[in-house]
Amino acid sequence: MVQRRVTITSIAREAGVSVSTVSKVLNGRADVAAGTRGRVEELLDKHAYPRAGRRGSDPAGLVDLVFGELDSPWAVEIIRGAEEVAHAAGLGTVVSAIHAAARARAEPARQWLDNLERRRSEGVVLVLEDLSPDQRARLEAMDVPCVVIDPRGEPDPGIPSIGAANWAGGLAATRHLTELGHRRIAIISGPAGMLCSRARLDGYRGALESAALPPDPELIRHGDFHHESGYVQAGLLLELPDPPTAIFAGSDQQAYGACEAARERGLRIPQDLSIVGFDDLSVSRWFSPPLTTVRQPLAEMGALATRLLLRLARGEVLETHRVELATELVVRESTAPPPR
Amino acid sequence: MVQRRVTITSIAREAGVSVSTVSKVLNGRADVAAGTRGRVEELLDKHAYPRAGRRGSDPAGLVDLVFGELDSPWAVEIIRGAEEVAHAAGLGTVVSAIHAAARARAEPARQWLDNLERRRSEGVVLVLEDLSPDQRARLEAMDVPCVVIDPRGEPDPGIPSIGAANWAGGLAATRHLTELGHRRIAIISGPAGMLCSRARLDGYRGALESAALPPDPELIRHGDFHHESGYVQAGLLLELPDPPTAIFAGSDQQAYGACEAARERGLRIPQDLSIVGFDDLSVSRWFSPPLTTVRQPLAEMGALATRLLLRLARGEVLETHRVELATELVVRESTAPPPR
Repeated sequence: MVQRRVTITSIAREAGVSVSTVSKVLNGRADVAAGTRGRVEELLDKHAYPRAGRRGSDPAGLVDLVFGELDSPWAVEIIRGAEEVAHAAGLGTVVSAIHAAARARAEPARQWLDNLERRRSEGVVLVLEDLSPDQRARLEAMDVPCVVIDPRGEPDPGIPSIGAANWAGGLAATRHLTELGHRRIAIISGPAGMLCSRARLDGYRGALESAALPPDPELIRHGDFHHESGYVQAGLLLELPDPPTAIFAGSDQQAYGACEAARERGLRIPQDLSIVGFDDLSVSRWFSPPLTTVRQPLAEMGALATRLLLRLARGEVLETHRVELATELVVRESTAPPPR
Repeated sequence: MVQRRVTITSIAREAGVSVSTVSKVLNGRADVAAGTRGRVEELLDKHAYPRAGRRGSDPAGLVDLVFGELDSPWAVEIIRGAEEVAHAAGLGTVVSAIHAAARARAEPARQWLDNLERRRSEGVVLVLEDLSPDQRARLEAMDVPCVVIDPRGEPDPGIPSIGAANWAGGLAATRHLTELGHRRIAIISGPAGMLCSRARLDGYRGALESAALPPDPELIRHGDFHHESGYVQAGLLLELPDPPTAIFAGSDQQAYGACEAARERGLRIPQDLSIVGFDDLSVSRWFSPPLTTVRQPLAEMGALATRLLLRLARGEVLETHRVELATELVVRESTAPPPR
């Protein structure tokens, strides 16, 4: 009852058609050739593929929240915000992980859409991921709307997206450091290709320029938002002949890693090295020392994405396909003037 | 379509029957008097209550994971483990928060069962909460099994539960401190009434006894697992005329709060004060200094609870109603011999 081997993907393979064609047949769409429809219907019957009610009959009662990975305290804040809004609308929140890291290792990514296609959904909030053309076609075939939080690439005008004011956050973090008197300021941003990392990096560059400080390519690094990459990159920065006196880390977790690299070298924070994070995870208030960071309103981002999704599910047209929520510099004890 | 005002609770109120009676009618159970059934059916029709398919027709395709609150990095580890197992079984994972804190303030707790009753579920994993008799009756009426992770009270033999070896963890943490030579060892356990807190406290007492150290009631404190309570209780402990040289905190978050209380008083960790946590959240490896703690296998607890749930959903009988997974002391840099 619980285990089921047949998937939309396997039906599509057997029928020699695309997955979105199978989706269309399942969802009673007219734009499928009669012969193709017949062949797919036959296979669906043969494998006893469960034919969930179609959209337009009962409401699904569910929204989907899909992450690349469920491996960061970051995720729970997004979930909390999304779940609040879904619950208030009488909907359950289905949380899934794509396991994007497996995909990056060229292993097959998870077929997160298969479960959704069997049971329907009011809509999908996708976090830190982009839809592949195939996934997009399948969601369209099911008439299931999608909103993306922090898309990896440029926001697709066809898919509404939510983000934080990353550029403004990068600017505020770096300006805080220049105003304290730092001249050698490094950045460990997120992945080079990601939109939010690029915006934070450009904010950093803008603040340096305002302070008439030329950017030094040696001081510009990239991590993957996790602790380890902050630790490794900060270690490399601190071994430079002319090391930085301050580091702007592109995530709180990278900031913790950078603090550990400093601690291992006997450097005191903030007396010997200032560190600024990005996120304001709940633990950052309690870090030793409490971390100066840029607050992203993560729960609000989850809530707003879900509100927009429910509007799309009701057939409303959104005013804009991109909303950025304000970030805020929170000054605590990990930053101070540079050592004399 | 998305918003819906009529709930099982409102139908029950209007019919003057219990919620579980409405559930039974909805689920086609025989044990409802004909007159009652007729009255409830009439109200369900009148309010156009959506009659989801009944159990035994299509599978639900979903499991439910219900938290008291979604406010800790702790939760994401449980979700990751549960989602892995559910996904492998072709099921979606619905994550909900009861908002138990609202209930504690005598506000009505969330009706998390209402959404579930409209769409069905293969089963419910409940985290750090107990089922009320009413909730239990409703789940039974729907024939939806339940497994609890870390029940608040004594495990109910009728409801399988998963926990960590809390007593053994408390023993190992405290023995580590006595073996380092500490004699004044405090504990900041979790809430006094909770089973897991009581087990950790008893492990602490057992280790003191083995070291021939009489427990000092002044050194035994309770928090609520969150940062703030660790900070407040550690502050009180450090103001004692004869303060402890080591603190065993009942959660990593309480340990971070205790570290902050020490830091504010100019105490160095571990030279002046040793601190041990409990959980091994991913950030604890990166705390300054890296935190000595007792690892709970949180993802495994989520995974095992879900596996047991799926066995119950298939009608299997479990060998035992209580499983405890091993804990492990992870020694890092927040513990050292007491100051001379």
